[in-house]
Amino acid sequence: MHHDDIYRLATELVAGKLPLESFLQQIAGAHGAQLDGVTLDLDRRRRCGYPEVIFGEGKSIPTLVQIVRRLLAERLPVLATRVSPDKADALLAEFTTGRYNPVARTFRAPAPIPDETVQLGQVAVVTAGTSDLPVAEEARETLEWMGVNVTMIHDVGVAGPHRLPRHLAALREADAIIVVAGLEGALPSVVGGYVDSPVIAVPTSVGYGASFGGIAALLGMLNSCASNVTVVNIDAGFKAGYVAGLITQRIWKGR
Amino acid sequence: MHHDDIYRLATELVAGKLPLESFLQQIAGAHGAQLDGVTLDLDRRRRCGYPEVIFGEGKSIPTLVQIVRRLLAERLPVLATRVSPDKADALLAEFTTGRYNPVARTFRAPAPIPDETVQLGQVAVVTAGTSDLPVAEEARETLEWMGVNVTMIHDVGVAGPHRLPRHLAALREADAIIVVAGLEGALPSVVGGYVDSPVIAVPTSVGYGASFGGIAALLGMLNSCASNVTVVNIDAGFKAGYVAGLITQRIWKGR
Amino acid sequence: MHHDDIYRLATELVAGKLPLESFLQQIAGAHGAQLDGVTLDLDRRRRCGYPEVIFGEGKSIPTLVQIVRRLLAERLPVLATRVSPDKADALLAEFTTGRYNPVARTFRAPAPIPDETVQLGQVAVVTAGTSDLPVAEEARETLEWMGVNVTMIHDVGVAGPHRLPRHLAALREADAIIVVAGLEGALPSVVGGYVDSPVIAVPTSVGYGASFGGIAALLGMLNSCASNVTVVNIDAGFKAGYVAGLITQRIWKGR
Amino acid sequence: MHHDDIYRLATELVAGKLPLESFLQQIAGAHGAQLDGVTLDLDRRRRCGYPEVIFGEGKSIPTLVQIVRRLLAERLPVLATRVSPDKADALLAEFTTGRYNPVARTFRAPAPIPDETVQLGQVAVVTAGTSDLPVAEEARETLEWMGVNVTMIHDVGVAGPHRLPRHLAALREADAIIVVAGLEGALPSVVGGYVDSPVIAVPTSVGYGASFGGIAALLGMLNSCASNVTVVNIDAGFKAGYVAGLITQRIWKGR
Amino acid sequence: MHHDDIYRLATELVAGKLPLESFLQQIAGAHGAQLDGVTLDLDRRRRCGYPEVIFGEGKSIPTLVQIVRRLLAERLPVLATRVSPDKADALLAEFTTGRYNPVARTFRAPAPIPDETVQLGQVAVVTAGTSDLPVAEEARETLEWMGVNVTMIHDVGVAGPHRLPRHLAALREADAIIVVAGLEGALPSVVGGYVDSPVIAVPTSVGYGASFGGIAALLGMLNSCASNVTVVNIDAGFKAGYVAGLITQRIWKGR
Amino acid sequence: MHHDDIYRLATELVAGKLPLESFLQQIAGAHGAQLDGVTLDLDRRRRCGYPEVIFGEGKSIPTLVQIVRRLLAERLPVLATRVSPDKADALLAEFTTGRYNPVARTFRAPAPIPDETVQLGQVAVVTAGTSDLPVAEEARETLEWMGVNVTMIHDVGVAGPHRLPRHLAALREADAIIVVAGLEGALPSVVGGYVDSPVIAVPTSVGYGASFGGIAALLGMLNSCASNVTVVNIDAGFKAGYVAGLITQRIWKGR
Amino acid sequence: MHHDDIYRLATELVAGKLPLESFLQQIAGAHGAQLDGVTLDLDRRRRCGYPEVIFGEGKSIPTLVQIVRRLLAERLPVLATRVSPDKADALLAEFTTGRYNPVARTFRAPAPIPDETVQLGQVAVVTAGTSDLPVAEEARETLEWMGVNVTMIHDVGVAGPHRLPRHLAALREADAIIVVAGLEGALPSVVGGYVDSPVIAVPTSVGYGASFGGIAALLGMLNSCASNVTVVNIDAGFKAGYVAGLITQRIWKGR
Amino acid sequence: MHHDDIYRLATELVAGKLPLESFLQQIAGAHGAQLDGVTLDLDRRRRCGYPEVIFGEGKSIPTLVQIVRRLLAERLPVLATRVSPDKADALLAEFTTGRYNPVARTFRAPAPIPDETVQLGQVAVVTAGTSDLPVAEEARETLEWMGVNVTMIHDVGVAGPHRLPRHLAALREADAIIVVAGLEGALPSVVGGYVDSPVIAVPTSVGYGASFGGIAALLGMLNSCASNVTVVNIDAGFKAGYVAGLITQRIWKGR
Repeated sequence: MHHDDIYRLATELVAGKLPLESFLQQIAGAHGAQLDGVTLDLDRRRRCGYPEVIFGEGKSIPTLVQIVRRLLAERLPVLATRVSPDKADALLAEFTTGRYNPVARTFRAPAPIPDETVQLGQVAVVTAGTSDLPVAEEARETLEWMGVNVTMIHDVGVAGPHRLPRHLAALREADAIIVVAGLEGALPSVVGGYVDSPVIAVPTSVGYGASFGGIAALLGMLNSCASNVTVVNIDAGFKAGYVAGLITQRIWKGR
Repeated sequence: MHHDDIYRLATELVAGKLPLESFLQQIAGAHGAQLDGVTLDLDRRRRCGYPEVIFGEGKSIPTLVQIVRRLLAERLPVLATRVSPDKADALLAEFTTGRYNPVARTFRAPAPIPDETVQLGQVAVVTAGTSDLPVAEEARETLEWMGVNVTMIHDVGVAGPHRLPRHLAALREADAIIVVAGLEGALPSVVGGYVDSPVIAVPTSVGYGASFGGIAALLGMLNSCASNVTVVNIDAGFKAGYVAGLITQRIWKGR
Repeated sequence: MHHDDIYRLATELVAGKLPLESFLQQIAGAHGAQLDGVTLDLDRRRRCGYPEVIFGEGKSIPTLVQIVRRLLAERLPVLATRVSPDKADALLAEFTTGRYNPVARTFRAPAPIPDETVQLGQVAVVTAGTSDLPVAEEARETLEWMGVNVTMIHDVGVAGPHRLPRHLAALREADAIIVVAGLEGALPSVVGGYVDSPVIAVPTSVGYGASFGGIAALLGMLNSCASNVTVVNIDAGFKAGYVAGLITQRIWKGR
Repeated sequence: MHHDDIYRLATELVAGKLPLESFLQQIAGAHGAQLDGVTLDLDRRRRCGYPEVIFGEGKSIPTLVQIVRRLLAERLPVLATRVSPDKADALLAEFTTGRYNPVARTFRAPAPIPDETVQLGQVAVVTAGTSDLPVAEEARETLEWMGVNVTMIHDVGVAGPHRLPRHLAALREADAIIVVAGLEGALPSVVGGYVDSPVIAVPTSVGYGASFGGIAALLGMLNSCASNVTVVNIDAGFKAGYVAGLITQRIWKGR
Repeated sequence: MHHDDIYRLATELVAGKLPLESFLQQIAGAHGAQLDGVTLDLDRRRRCGYPEVIFGEGKSIPTLVQIVRRLLAERLPVLATRVSPDKADALLAEFTTGRYNPVARTFRAPAPIPDETVQLGQVAVVTAGTSDLPVAEEARETLEWMGVNVTMIHDVGVAGPHRLPRHLAALREADAIIVVAGLEGALPSVVGGYVDSPVIAVPTSVGYGASFGGIAALLGMLNSCASNVTVVNIDAGFKAGYVAGLITQRIWKGR
Repeated sequence: MHHDDIYRLATELVAGKLPLESFLQQIAGAHGAQLDGVTLDLDRRRRCGYPEVIFGEGKSIPTLVQIVRRLLAERLPVLATRVSPDKADALLAEFTTGRYNPVARTFRAPAPIPDETVQLGQVAVVTAGTSDLPVAEEARETLEWMGVNVTMIHDVGVAGPHRLPRHLAALREADAIIVVAGLEGALPSVVGGYVDSPVIAVPTSVGYGASFGGIAALLGMLNSCASNVTVVNIDAGFKAGYVAGLITQRIWKGR
Repeated sequence: MHHDDIYRLATELVAGKLPLESFLQQIAGAHGAQLDGVTLDLDRRRRCGYPEVIFGEGKSIPTLVQIVRRLLAERLPVLATRVSPDKADALLAEFTTGRYNPVARTFRAPAPIPDETVQLGQVAVVTAGTSDLPVAEEARETLEWMGVNVTMIHDVGVAGPHRLPRHLAALREADAIIVVAGLEGALPSVVGGYVDSPVIAVPTSVGYGASFGGIAALLGMLNSCASNVTVVNIDAGFKAGYVAGLITQRIWKGR
Repeated sequence: MHHDDIYRLATELVAGKLPLESFLQQIAGAHGAQLDGVTLDLDRRRRCGYPEVIFGEGKSIPTLVQIVRRLLAERLPVLATRVSPDKADALLAEFTTGRYNPVARTFRAPAPIPDETVQLGQVAVVTAGTSDLPVAEEARETLEWMGVNVTMIHDVGVAGPHRLPRHLAALREADAIIVVAGLEGALPSVVGGYVDSPVIAVPTSVGYGASFGGIAALLGMLNSCASNVTVVNIDAGFKAGYVAGLITQRIWKGR
């Protein structure tokens, strides 16, 4: 909403032409695009630092296309998560600059006139086993969309204790560390004990029996004895990447 | 039951004086002492290797005294677990050879004519933090009652990853390892990755919030990515000690 | 461990006088003080940025005194959490420079020769209701111990939606935001929607009925629709403060 | 049951021809149609204000057709919920005045001689995200079948806090408000804080990870800090619509 | 906030003396009293129909006294719930017009210059057993504070099926019905089948074994086969009373 | 309600003096005594075979005294369960024919003019361990109040497999068997495999760790592989006794 | 095992030719047929009153055919539960006297030379809704296989409270009553309040949302306020039928 | 890592050419093969007694082939678990010495130059029912891969109590016993009561209703009243076999 509009509304308010409540609602309601059944948040980059990200699950192909088109029209870079292959095909056909990561199940399209931002900072994404890869890839895609460099460290779960130490230097260089693990979710505690950076733990739904679709790992991570570990939802690679990216941007962009 | 009795019963069976079912029941029912409201298993050492252990919780002082007296009369060494301090006072007053461990809350009394068994084998009992001590002590008391040597390794939880390696030699010498841990229960996985012996994991009810009285640790241990880890109930120091003792005895006593 | 010692050990290793494993263990095992039943991590400040923090629950008064004395002897500033009033009395009697916060249940004592660090950065600690205060205070004490400035914003839960907006400026100035809430745990999502900084959500065990001691709030926070929200354990004010402090330090101290 | 029948039965009772219990049962048992394996409640409109609604899940097509036919024969308007597309096809083929809503999965057919009721009152149905639409549509269909006007407000979840205020006027005009939300279920609390009407919260099974098929949202809503929020079962759009409709009818029809 | 103030602020805004954000915050932040650690919502009666209610649990006596005093100073009638007897004593000593209900554990004090409102409408509060009384009383106190008439129907649980029917007339006269039940929580379904008014079900934590502190009743009520049943939190007598009161007010006060 | 009253009411109904609904309610509502906050079911013996049993928990001493007095006035034998010692003292002081069982926590008083019923039938009550005794005693008291003979078989849990067989004859003679067990709840399956009578399993809240207050035993019993096992609530000795008594009465009293 | 064999073994035992343990094992191990991977219990009719019932789930067609053939060869009547349609086809092709109930998913085949048993006794099987039918049918098939008469009463759930009373006479005539219900599981309590016979409650996995696959109904039934209700596992129609059959047989066959 | 390499590194360390941290990491990081996305542990036989086992679930066919090829190249015997039939076909086509067990879903291939180890020791694998077979077979395959003899005892669940005793001799000869059971998980307790060897209990996800995919059995086993029972995860046949194998090797290989 342009400031002109705000002043016009305030003038009407002062002149008694506009009830106070209407005034507040018009100011509050700006910056959103009302698509078909979707209220798009176009003011988000100003308010929260990054444009809105599309959660692909449960949205139809036409809805997805409509949202992507509008975001690009606003010159915003696009990130969509939980995009199934068939939806990806439709998006790739429509938006030729887009790229689909089938492991992460993410779709990205650069802004038409991209920012001149260079990639900066460094986040390490660590996995305990090969099954944690899709969640780690979702985190990586998110970070790259945010303009943050990523180091991937794979398959260093605690049952092979000799595997982690060789990556200590890379871990200590990172601005933030994402640890993705299923089963007992012990890896974030071990990583957390070696470093002085914030560790974001992502439980995965990998496992069987009493892993309960990731609950065992989630509980393990919440109860981590390492002080620098916070947790996100099961399989929430995007959220882990987003928070790690925010932290890194703050460190490098200064205040 | 003496074999004479069995033969007498069988003779009566063959002579048609004793119905088959009565015969079977009398044979089955031997070897137990029927105290007041308690059926004491006096044949257990022959059948299972060790005498019956008394679970002190929910038993009155007179009942406890009665059981201990009977076991000593059968020349059996006594171990009672979950014995509160006031019950312990009563037992110590009555049985002057007894000893109470207030941390483990166990009471032990040697057999009046002890076996000439020497202590043999070696079990390592490892704790993650200082709060795990009572459970570890219960395991230690159980092992010593079984005639097994114990090494205690304390406070080596995963958040301080440099603390465990210095104990690797002791861990590798053990016939079996008990790991006692609360919070996320990650320590058994880490220990399990270093050794080739069976690891018995004991979750403890230590912690707060989403530790849920030990459930988080229990789930972590059940989902351990280390192949050599089995689990017992929350706070079950006795059971962990007992199983570790059985394994050690089998190794050292041969077949 | 002084480098001299490391060279001496390596020389013995090369000379064949020291087995490799012993060499590794001695290097790994340094930097720890073995108190009575406690393995104190004295190398933690170098490795993780801050000295070890004492979890007061389940530790006896003599143990606490012993640990505090040793940390002060190492010239480290002391923070102990979950300290009951009677334990606090004992600590205050012994360490006259200490200070007890009875709401947070924390004990702090400055390093004998304090660092010349100025307080820097800014973390906002937000509560939903008056019952969330103790957890928020634990976070605040932790942050101040780390040398980070804190702004407290109280009692702005979502049922009174007009209460939050007046604090938006303070929220937007913060390097990181801690949101402490019980009941349905909705406040972090609402705060997260207004800012571009990382939000650390702390569920509290406040509530009754189906709040299940904080599980409802915990689940609400894990499922937050805001992308910048990570979660710590129920009532884990210390951990939230610690992570927020780490992030702030990284931002202000540069790389 | 006609009063003539009741008097006849009572006369027989007084004359001693009819045992008391039989008398009571015949009176109690009237007003129901015994179809094949189904006991249809034909007295429900008199007793509860509206005819019986058909729960389509687990009923075969012939059973559904039989019930719809009987209700129409009783001149009752028909609402069937949880009707799969193939069952809908069969119903539409048989009952040409019927209408199927594929998003809500509801089937409706007007009474052959409809009441002259006008639509009255106003219920607002609010959704947090696009995935909550099917449940909201089920509520809307129910309300329209009851003769109540509906305002739909979509996609105003708490992570975009600027989206809700522009709908405040519509919310404040409603006689009752239904809020449909998954994830952390925070929206009913926020809506509840702005209005003085009853808010009926419907958790949806939307989400992943620790949303546990709607349990997180359900718990969030039960623990809502807003005083005017009651809750129905997960995905229970029909029940929310029905209760909101009852409230609205009471307000507008007077006493 | 007086309209004069709003105009003054808007004038400053138009004149460029006041940033837009400050303007919005000052408007939003009015109507609240900032007591010591408590943000009191004084605008609530205008916005939500009734003044703020005090949740007594976790608040100290001085805090309670301070809040009650301020509300009375604002000429608002006071209701405090979850007030323990000792807190009640302190309040009664200070506020001589107050009244304490020890079963409901509520404290009420009339507004100094009471509204001339007459009691209107009718809510029935039904209990399954004698143990449900405290929760029912909390609902009753809330309704009376709101100016709504209450009928209490006690001890009519489903195991004595002959007890409920004699109260049918009273139930059918009610504008809304509150059903309080523990154990299996079946009573709301049975009541719901007889009436055409909204039924608000309150599970209680009464019971033992697999009642799990009210979870069994809560689940039973959520799964009620009666269409007119909504649910509030376990033991949430206040919330049930409040919602029933809102509905009744709407019916009787018209639009 | 005497038949005279019913005829009078029906006459009024036929004469049009009494509305149908009032007629039904008066008939339905008879047979109940409305004490202070308690609706006593005096028709229960006719309808369900036995008088109402008093659940003592949550009832005050005056309420208990009032109920017992009224039941005795109706010449009914009294059984009250979950009676604490202090309540028992009050009842014993008032009703000198009463008897209190402190282990079962039951109070019984014979009918003033007892039935000439002899004790008949036979129910076996089996416990796994000594801690299950209180629940078993509650079952025994219930059975004796019902006029059924009881055999107690104690401490025959599955870990001592030789203990059960000696009781097989007694088990096979029983009309119904109650098995009371905590921990893993395996005993009912084992008993069920030996007999052809119905087995009623009662889980007890005995145990620690992952027994979860009886849930483990409850689940074990519900999943019993023996076909003749049904289950009652945790610690529900009364209900198990009551059902076993009903079955036995039916067998011996014929049809 | 013929008595001749037992005497022969006992003679060998007395003569010292047979070790005691071998003797016991041979006696214990008789009466079972060792099929391929299945140990068939052929002594069950003598011991438990009825032959072994086949649980069809997880057994291959050849295994099922093999078991049925062996049971028929032993002149035992066959009942198999949880038999899928394709398995039923194979059984019907092989055993021409068999009958498949596709709703109950049971297969039955009469003994080649059937007992001259007449059907006796009476069990009522009651359902709350049409979706409970399959479980009720499994109970009915089981009862008929046991030689017990069955009355089916359908669709009398508590939301239509006028539906149950007309069946009271049938309910009161039954020797035992099975109540099958999903959702909140309230029907057993209501039925239990009308009768003096044992009620066996079967929760079904019918429902959605917070019914959790039958857990809500299970908890409701376990917490039933009616004293004569016991519970079996979710969907356990067979077990309910079996126990009801045992009770009925005991009543009618005398002792 | 050859000792030559270690000495070379240490020499560089002493010469100041190599930083201490790099030195430690190079030593720690040896013995692992970095395949595509997989870190293979080639040092495991030396450290833990047996080579790494491949968890087949979630690994693609190319990844599996790559791992198997590398292990065989290292002259290690291969065991892969959770291998689906289509993956097995691909492995069998590539590795002609391999063998697939379709019940256990395991793939094994002998080392190219096998050890001259003879099979030694004896483990008994016991199942409660036919559905437990796949888990038992996984345990058996694991044991045979480890060079341990196996005795299979099938279908001896507790509901047929006469089935177990005939196998007592075999059970008592075993070095360790694995008991696989679903439903209530009672069999390990019963077996544990007869023997003096460690019993490893494996809950299976067999069952329906309140078995909750093996949770009931898991809880039953954790709460086992037998002292010699430890537990592994639901369906964890491999882990049970592995631990039983470790114990047996220790017993027979001496120290």
